[in-house]
Amino acid sequence: MKTTLPFLATAFALYTMYVSAQSKADVTTFVNPMIGTDGMGHTFPGACAPFGIVQLSPETDTIPHNINGKYQGNVYAYCAGYQYHDPTIVGFSHTHLSGTGHSDLGDVMLMPQTGRLILTPGTASRPDEGYRSRYSHNTEKASVGYYEVTLADNNVRVQLTATPRVGVHKYTFPKGQDSRLILDLLHGIYNYDGKVLWSSIRVENDTLLTGYRITNGWARANYTYFAISFSKPILSYGYRDKKRPKYLGFWRKFQLYQDFPEMAGQNIVAYFNFDNSRSQDLTVKVALSAVSTEGAQKNLATEVGSKSFEEVYAATRASWQRELSIISCQGTDDQKAMLYTSLYHTMINPSVYMDVDRKYRGLDGNIHEATDFDNYTVFSLWDTYRAEHPLLNLLKTDRNTNMVKSMLAHWRQSVHHVLPVWSLMGNEGWCMTGYHAVTVLADAIVKGALIDKDEAFKAMVSTATWTRFPGLKEYMTLGYAPYDRDATAASNTLEYSFDDFTIYAAALKEGRTDISEPFARRALYYRNTFDKTLGFASPRYADGRFKADLDPYQTYNEGFIEGNSWNFSFHAPQDVYGLMSVMGGEEAFLQKLNRLFEMNLPPKYYKDNEDITADCLVGGYVHGNEPSHHIPYLYAWTSTPWLTQQRLRTIMNKMYRNHIRGLGGNDDCGQMSAWYIFTAMGFYPVCPGSDQYVLGVPYLPYMNVALPNGKHLTIKAPNVSDKNCYVQSLKLNGRPYTKLYLTHADLLNGCTLKYVMGSKPNKRRGQAIIDKPYSLTVLK
Amino acid sequence: MKTTLPFLATAFALYTMYVSAQSKADVTTFVNPMIGTDGMGHTFPGACAPFGIVQLSPETDTIPHNINGKYQGNVYAYCAGYQYHDPTIVGFSHTHLSGTGHSDLGDVMLMPQTGRLILTPGTASRPDEGYRSRYSHNTEKASVGYYEVTLADNNVRVQLTATPRVGVHKYTFPKGQDSRLILDLLHGIYNYDGKVLWSSIRVENDTLLTGYRITNGWARANYTYFAISFSKPILSYGYRDKKRPKYLGFWRKFQLYQDFPEMAGQNIVAYFNFDNSRSQDLTVKVALSAVSTEGAQKNLATEVGSKSFEEVYAATRASWQRELSIISCQGTDDQKAMLYTSLYHTMINPSVYMDVDRKYRGLDGNIHEATDFDNYTVFSLWDTYRAEHPLLNLLKTDRNTNMVKSMLAHWRQSVHHVLPVWSLMGNEGWCMTGYHAVTVLADAIVKGALIDKDEAFKAMVSTATWTRFPGLKEYMTLGYAPYDRDATAASNTLEYSFDDFTIYAAALKEGRTDISEPFARRALYYRNTFDKTLGFASPRYADGRFKADLDPYQTYNEGFIEGNSWNFSFHAPQDVYGLMSVMGGEEAFLQKLNRLFEMNLPPKYYKDNEDITADCLVGGYVHGNEPSHHIPYLYAWTSTPWLTQQRLRTIMNKMYRNHIRGLGGNDDCGQMSAWYIFTAMGFYPVCPGSDQYVLGVPYLPYMNVALPNGKHLTIKAPNVSDKNCYVQSLKLNGRPYTKLYLTHADLLNGCTLKYVMGSKPNKRRGQAIIDKPYSLTVLK
Repeated sequence: MKTTLPFLATAFALYTMYVSAQSKADVTTFVNPMIGTDGMGHTFPGACAPFGIVQLSPETDTIPHNINGKYQGNVYAYCAGYQYHDPTIVGFSHTHLSGTGHSDLGDVMLMPQTGRLILTPGTASRPDEGYRSRYSHNTEKASVGYYEVTLADNNVRVQLTATPRVGVHKYTFPKGQDSRLILDLLHGIYNYDGKVLWSSIRVENDTLLTGYRITNGWARANYTYFAISFSKPILSYGYRDKKRPKYLGFWRKFQLYQDFPEMAGQNIVAYFNFDNSRSQDLTVKVALSAVSTEGAQKNLATEVGSKSFEEVYAATRASWQRELSIISCQGTDDQKAMLYTSLYHTMINPSVYMDVDRKYRGLDGNIHEATDFDNYTVFSLWDTYRAEHPLLNLLKTDRNTNMVKSMLAHWRQSVHHVLPVWSLMGNEGWCMTGYHAVTVLADAIVKGALIDKDEAFKAMVSTATWTRFPGLKEYMTLGYAPYDRDATAASNTLEYSFDDFTIYAAALKEGRTDISEPFARRALYYRNTFDKTLGFASPRYADGRFKADLDPYQTYNEGFIEGNSWNFSFHAPQDVYGLMSVMGGEEAFLQKLNRLFEMNLPPKYYKDNEDITADCLVGGYVHGNEPSHHIPYLYAWTSTPWLTQQRLRTIMNKMYRNHIRGLGGNDDCGQMSAWYIFTAMGFYPVCPGSDQYVLGVPYLPYMNVALPNGKHLTIKAPNVSDKNCYVQSLKLNGRPYTKLYLTHADLLNGCTLKYVMGSKPNKRRGQAIIDKPYSLTVLK
Repeated sequence: MKTTLPFLATAFALYTMYVSAQSKADVTTFVNPMIGTDGMGHTFPGACAPFGIVQLSPETDTIPHNINGKYQGNVYAYCAGYQYHDPTIVGFSHTHLSGTGHSDLGDVMLMPQTGRLILTPGTASRPDEGYRSRYSHNTEKASVGYYEVTLADNNVRVQLTATPRVGVHKYTFPKGQDSRLILDLLHGIYNYDGKVLWSSIRVENDTLLTGYRITNGWARANYTYFAISFSKPILSYGYRDKKRPKYLGFWRKFQLYQDFPEMAGQNIVAYFNFDNSRSQDLTVKVALSAVSTEGAQKNLATEVGSKSFEEVYAATRASWQRELSIISCQGTDDQKAMLYTSLYHTMINPSVYMDVDRKYRGLDGNIHEATDFDNYTVFSLWDTYRAEHPLLNLLKTDRNTNMVKSMLAHWRQSVHHVLPVWSLMGNEGWCMTGYHAVTVLADAIVKGALIDKDEAFKAMVSTATWTRFPGLKEYMTLGYAPYDRDATAASNTLEYSFDDFTIYAAALKEGRTDISEPFARRALYYRNTFDKTLGFASPRYADGRFKADLDPYQTYNEGFIEGNSWNFSFHAPQDVYGLMSVMGGEEAFLQKLNRLFEMNLPPKYYKDNEDITADCLVGGYVHGNEPSHHIPYLYAWTSTPWLTQQRLRTIMNKMYRNHIRGLGGNDDCGQMSAWYIFTAMGFYPVCPGSDQYVLGVPYLPYMNVALPNGKHLTIKAPNVSDKNCYVQSLKLNGRPYTKLYLTHADLLNGCTLKYVMGSKPNKRRGQAIIDKPYSLTVLK
């Protein structure tokens, strides 16, 4: 530990140099990347730069391996490769998904080694049989752009930092020991025998490697090229290839496995020995590219070059400070930790997916040049259309516009002419349902993004009419996806209908009546899957019948995806009054809403359920998964809007804690965190595609948010607390404000929201119909 | 057959339009692509353009498949995918090696089908179980740029033609039958389970496919992208994937195997149905690229576009006419067939390896742009340094210079900084021995090629000092590759030493004494592997001892590669007088030379031998493999130079016949054929790297060769015949010429060689030392 202080001193001096011009409070120190690393959060503790494609992070297990054709262990737990309570670290790899519920990546893993050469990872229960190591959390430090741990088994200190495209490792080996680095190209998250289609390493010279691997996983064909530079010359090296190519040809004439600079195969685990006698430090710079090793080398040279570890870290920390310091606030340290960590989590995925020379691998497998936009990947759209994209659209408008343009590029390159469903490393992952990219585009249009709107409408319409989407062909004729064609027909109908609303809304704004009219009709199709006898959304057969024995508490096999009917039935944010109607009127609606939050959900409905745990429940309301995220705000349309305020405070306190287990569910590429940021500010985009944000309640006494246009949002609720959680009155720019929503224009103009809070609800607020938020139809 | 005549008439009309300006005799009709398609020639009968990367040819078998871990059948016979006596055709694929002894490729195979859908090839003995078909040679037509066959089992007429980067198929289906095309991406030459690392097909629209496959074979990682256009819309399609990905992810939600436009996997065999009711013709244009599907589409648009099959064929035939009509001659039809077919075979490999936009996949895996040269691949250098490259250097100087530049690009991209050994599709295949690219570079320099000589010397020296070449490290200190380090140490020493000579010669010409001096020494190292007690080259141990029990008749396991000591002992063309010396003087040398051609080699030395058959023997002289190719010319240095004339006539008559079995050995990417062209002209580059061609004897009464510089070689031997096979006298440009060699300058100046031939040798010719060809040292 003795080198910690000089390192921190140097890095901090460099960092203050970078940020000195800004004279803002250093908010990076509040970020706690450990939040969510235990249990369901599926976040990773490692180092990354804002929106960078490199997430350099420790992995604690690589379960599952395919043993006798069966996957062993809990794949789901290892979406980000790290579970806090695991006893060992396997290595440090460069690509991770932040908070997802499905997994892939873990590319290009390094691990330092001393002593005996072992090229297999070993197991958590028998770490000595492999290169993995025990570790203590006492040696672990995680902050923006920085991760540190000391490996217990070999006493190697590991420090990690990253730029958008380069991971930088600093290994300090113990004196008197040899020093070796393992480069495991077989390792991966959600790994299985045969996942690596091909891999290659070239030892270009004694301090530079290039190489790549192609994997077939969630990303169907994922090309990861790399360039790796070392601060010390390689003394010797070699590799093992458990599954040697059946045909080796004339390569047999060489001693391929020792000091041969062209390694290739499907099971490559390589090692590199270094001299540890004069200096114990080894700095390793790993640049990635999806294009080529040439691209990786350009990324390496441009983003890192000859910079020291400390310089890279300081610059990355400064870039996080620039990104995060758009918000200043008052609150407890824990509240600040949660706020800034949430903001941090909204800026990991989507990730930039192009080289510094703007080349990127497109969905068509070709190399394109992003001449007029920045290309992004990792669009977890079923999650992120709700709050992550609206948040970025508000706070990082340029980035969100570039993401929209990336989705349009994906559409242009799609052989189906379909916008992304789950974009992953130049691949379509097809995970989850709906066509929510449509919503992101529509929301961008409605909120004034500078994109090619003609192309956007073409993309939206061709996507929303792509009849390979389950049940969509029948949806377009019957008005709902039939259960006999589609196992999640009920939720699909709800999702399609919402997405269709956003097309309508964007078309309406742009005067495209040719589009707005048909999609206005489709925006109401959600009603067709409501069983009015039950007052619940329910799967419906093509012949018109509803499922006979619907269990509205049950998440699976009831016609819904990752949600039960109790939660999904509220999924018509485009038409809350219409929804009330099909539920039997406002009273029935309100009763159901209250019951949702207050019921006692029997454990049988969530034990052994990936998507619901007790941690993420408020009554029967499931905050840990996305379909419910807008529900607490639906009180705004009712006669008890103040109940939103109550529910939100409960959720905020319960689901978001400055703790390793502090996230009640998967962060899902920032969606859970974006919900937090919005809700902390006191408003939420209940219905993307409209220009409204529904008011909730501020969580902190003071927040100031710098918008990209230079304007500021100031939110003051001086006496807010768990007790004083009810809005008594609100002034917007000094004038009393009675509406239950703000418009995008209100925010863009810059505004000050001044709340008077109290311990009892002001039940008179927000009762007038004129103060109610948008609904496609009005209450009948 | 009824459509044959109109087709030929149309194509011929188009063709004459293309060539009309040239008013030269149509020599394309003499080319017989069937020569060498039976037995050892390993040529293919299909269609290609000069130096094109596409060789669109039928395949008669795909042996071996890996059955229970063992390869079945005779891999060697199927290097070009076609054996004349096979009863069935499997399909028509786009890449083939011409005449090699090792194999790969057979990429992107199409096969027409009617009736029942079958997606496996079946076997030659049970063709009805697969998509393969019987065929009759009566329906087969092969000529430059054209191949035709009618498949007996489904009565589909198949016509093939090609541009450099595009194969064009025309299928005529029988009336009243359905029509289907199989696209087998699993098929390959030298195929085995696991060879296809990944493959992909995108149905871009109803007349266009794009896709690729990556294979791990002789080319370690071979990227073949394609774009395929159809003259009719696809009605329906699908694929089978015998080895489905273990992880299919969310693709499972689709009906992937039927009409789904994104197919991918490791075992893809796809089919496409077309309407056969209105027209029975289906034209298919298949463009390849090693860069991307974008590159393939550019190649398709630029080289073929909307041209008809007939237009493409006529243009390709015209381009062959331009290439081949540089030679005019008198002779029998069989002699002309052999001459033009040989010339044709010298212009298939090497092949152009870059897209029309000049992008190509380099040895480093990166995409490069060939800004100042044309990039070529398929360098079978152990073979082609001898005569193929010297021939191209003389007749197609620009192409050879571009090939040299391609080798330099390979060197720049080589992590070893080594010139190509066997360049194959952007890969190094490492097949065979020596570093003969050095010789090609040196020969180009000596003969005045416009290349960067400083870079060339760097490349030659770094290659000749790359100590991973077997035994080379010891060779550089001991003066020979030791047998205890290197199983083919004796031939390696001979080959290294010859290559070293060429470095010396080129350096001497360019005044680089820093290089010429050390390599002059190495040029004599061949002597160190001569066992003077035997008078034979013999493997030698590091301690100086020679192998005790050398069997100089035995090809294998005696320290030589693909040759016995009897043949290899003559492998010092750079220093024939020195060689005589180590063999015990001229008399001993001559005695050995005669014995070589006159011995009765016991069959045990060539039965079960891939590289020697009775077909390719003259006594113990093996013409079917390359190490001996210069030997008949070695008489020039002796007192019986006329014996060269005798031996050559024998070899020419025996080894080169206008017959399916007309080649006595593998054509080896044009080397056997280049030998034929040179020998027919009456001279041969015995020692590339010197500027001399050693005179043999003209084979035909008249030849005229147009050189690229506009000058002509005219070779007249009016009364030459099998009887009159001896040179009585020779006039060069009208003046008596007594030397036994010509220089490159003599040829470049243009010249007329007028021979008087007779039935008895003129034993006085060529006896003066001044008339003898080059030798590094003189006779002692």
